[in-house]
Amino acid sequence: MNPLSSPLLSDLYQFTMLQSYLEHEMEETAVFEFFVRKLPPGRNFLVAAGLEQVLDFLENLQFSPEELTWLSSRFPPHVIAYLEQFRFSGDVHAMPEGTPFFPGQPILRVTAPIPQAQLVESRIINLLHFETLIASKAARSVLVAPDKLLVDFGLRRAHGAEAGLLAARASYLAGFSGTSTVLAGALYDVPLFGTMAHSFIQAHTDETTAFEHFARSHPANAILLIDTYDTEAAAGKVVSLAKELQHEGIHIKGVRLDSGDLAAHARNVRRILDEGGLQQVTIFASGNLDEYRLHDLLSSGAPIDGFGVGTAMDTSSDAPALDCAYKLQEYAGQPRRKRSEGKATWPGRKQVYRSYDAAGRMSGDVVALEDGDAHDGEALIQPVMRNGIRVNALVPLAELREQTLAGYARLPEAMTGAAAAPAYPVNISEALQELAKTIDSKTNGN
Amino acid sequence: MNPLSSPLLSDLYQFTMLQSYLEHEMEETAVFEFFVRKLPPGRNFLVAAGLEQVLDFLENLQFSPEELTWLSSRFPPHVIAYLEQFRFSGDVHAMPEGTPFFPGQPILRVTAPIPQAQLVESRIINLLHFETLIASKAARSVLVAPDKLLVDFGLRRAHGAEAGLLAARASYLAGFSGTSTVLAGALYDVPLFGTMAHSFIQAHTDETTAFEHFARSHPANAILLIDTYDTEAAAGKVVSLAKELQHEGIHIKGVRLDSGDLAAHARNVRRILDEGGLQQVTIFASGNLDEYRLHDLLSSGAPIDGFGVGTAMDTSSDAPALDCAYKLQEYAGQPRRKRSEGKATWPGRKQVYRSYDAAGRMSGDVVALEDGDAHDGEALIQPVMRNGIRVNALVPLAELREQTLAGYARLPEAMTGAAAAPAYPVNISEALQELAKTIDSKTNGN
Repeated sequence: MNPLSSPLLSDLYQFTMLQSYLEHEMEETAVFEFFVRKLPPGRNFLVAAGLEQVLDFLENLQFSPEELTWLSSRFPPHVIAYLEQFRFSGDVHAMPEGTPFFPGQPILRVTAPIPQAQLVESRIINLLHFETLIASKAARSVLVAPDKLLVDFGLRRAHGAEAGLLAARASYLAGFSGTSTVLAGALYDVPLFGTMAHSFIQAHTDETTAFEHFARSHPANAILLIDTYDTEAAAGKVVSLAKELQHEGIHIKGVRLDSGDLAAHARNVRRILDEGGLQQVTIFASGNLDEYRLHDLLSSGAPIDGFGVGTAMDTSSDAPALDCAYKLQEYAGQPRRKRSEGKATWPGRKQVYRSYDAAGRMSGDVVALEDGDAHDGEALIQPVMRNGIRVNALVPLAELREQTLAGYARLPEAMTGAAAAPAYPVNISEALQELAKTIDSKTNGN
Repeated sequence: MNPLSSPLLSDLYQFTMLQSYLEHEMEETAVFEFFVRKLPPGRNFLVAAGLEQVLDFLENLQFSPEELTWLSSRFPPHVIAYLEQFRFSGDVHAMPEGTPFFPGQPILRVTAPIPQAQLVESRIINLLHFETLIASKAARSVLVAPDKLLVDFGLRRAHGAEAGLLAARASYLAGFSGTSTVLAGALYDVPLFGTMAHSFIQAHTDETTAFEHFARSHPANAILLIDTYDTEAAAGKVVSLAKELQHEGIHIKGVRLDSGDLAAHARNVRRILDEGGLQQVTIFASGNLDEYRLHDLLSSGAPIDGFGVGTAMDTSSDAPALDCAYKLQEYAGQPRRKRSEGKATWPGRKQVYRSYDAAGRMSGDVVALEDGDAHDGEALIQPVMRNGIRVNALVPLAELREQTLAGYARLPEAMTGAAAAPAYPVNISEALQELAKTIDSKTNGN
């Protein structure tokens, strides 16, 4: 059982409900939509991500003999027989990855026989939620530090293997320069960056020898970590070493700061390097960074060329979860609506229309019904899978990243900083409001 | 490349440092220790978890031909030749999973040639950090609601597949009753629990039919979700339905509340059920729960028998990361110490001794050197792997869980609630303090 693709990576109730759907011959078409209910505090928009992993999951979904054996001691033979044949044969509509979006807007719609559409719920949410969470967080650093090298450093405190891997993917999609996670390079072609660890310095009896060893092994791209003992003293050692090594064609690429007052150290180190003739040696900073600290460091004029952003991004530490849902909006041709307190949903299959002002910036969205409720603007939700098969060829991640960056240029200007902006206008179409009222009146007292 | 076991699930610098270690013939024994620097706000202790996954990772670590091919375009042939033969051949010492521990105390020590001990760093932190994070969070709900059914409901908002899976494992280890994540049942024998979703109710034209369908499919253990439209009205429907169905031998096991004022609804629903003769039908609650809400609900006397705890636990939402590290403490027989500002470490191989008072409760710990620095109390760190091979047979997870629960009974009483307790006494031995001073005096100006 491969945990990343096993259909058992699901909630038990998906199987108990499936059994009941089958036993009561409920296999008509269901429409589920995934959306976020509200923005985390301080956030201005979200960035859709994770679609590629969802499509991959749906395309390859099947039960292995081992999984069926495990299930067969828990579910009756007719359920096992159904699962043995199980393939996802439905349709999927979605916003392209990298699209900025807002609460109440579906970013993915699944249309399939209800036992299928229900069974895939847990993993669809698990994937879309996480990548959207991380892309939305990463976008904020990209907007705050648009001209800097931004590297995902979060693997070690990401929540497990897949979180580390998909955080590297989602942050690159959102505009990061790359990641330190090697497997993300191997699997997703995310550019790789790396420096050195304190342990490397400590394993040597003196710091200069450690620097020299590393530079000799990596003669064109060594980034030396200079905060293990005394940052400014180490910068001085880098200057001396660089002079010695340049005659051998070895060039030190940069230094990294990882502790203390990064702005003050960066200024001191820049001066030491410059006075030593090392103007081309870059300064890279890391250590508990997020978009707020990036903003402060850059506002203060700290001479830092690149940043490693780790834990705060890979865990989205100020908002480690989104209030999101995958909800039934239609069954057997009839729109459906949940009315639980504080969790009511808009019924039916929906489209999102986005308008732009004369300067090409986003000016407002309308959430409308897909059929017979057309509005001006760009229709954001497009077909991506028909009858279980992808509609389009895979778009390379680097290309999605370019599209995402182009999208940021169309955001309202107030939304491009780290600070909270006025709410973006998202209207619910009259037809959709009418439909909700009609359903409520029918189900009163249900 | 299997993301969960691939040695490429690592930071790039582990490979660039490895290259440099090899090129400079630095393959002597290194000692690294994993520890947490400080408690998250409001937490009283941490619970060690993830050791089993670390040992499994180390035992099976090797590079596949595909991985070697990928690496060979990025690293010189001598590095590839080394990696081709790579197996972890070191020793591991650790605290047993489920042990309460405190900042500054190592919970795992790796002793191995430095290229090995370094290469495994990223994944060791990734695993220990996450499971410890979740077990430590889950323990708080277990302590607050010791007699209640507690079920992990967090898969969908856990950060990816492995997070969902390991959160189920770690929370069960910490004393939860089980999980809704099916794969955690299949892979780790975690007991499974489940109810039904709103979509199941909505897919039916009326709520009673939905209840009946589900109860007929699950005649002994249906838990009916009653908040889709009107909670109290739905409870009334459950009473009528239960009377109808009992003649057929179908018994409704419980109802679930998922929105609104859970305490008020629970009281209303309990009264409706009791008046309808359904005293044995249990009330299960879910919806943005954590240990604080559990404490409030139970303090208010809300008649709730069990809780589904999801997002807040699986993301440890109030502290989604621990400030933890895997640091070099000794190389080639010499103790090492990092002195970066705010991040200094205690050098050498360490042991933790724990004392208990007359009532059998923990009264204080000493962090000491492993050799020649024995103290009274229980030595918490034990050998678990020698020369790359496990020392002990795998302990079943249910047994680890019993040990964890027994450990809670030895916590100082003030630490067993949701509120912050006085700090637990952890002392650094004199010998360890002396060693740190000696190293500092030697490396001054390094």
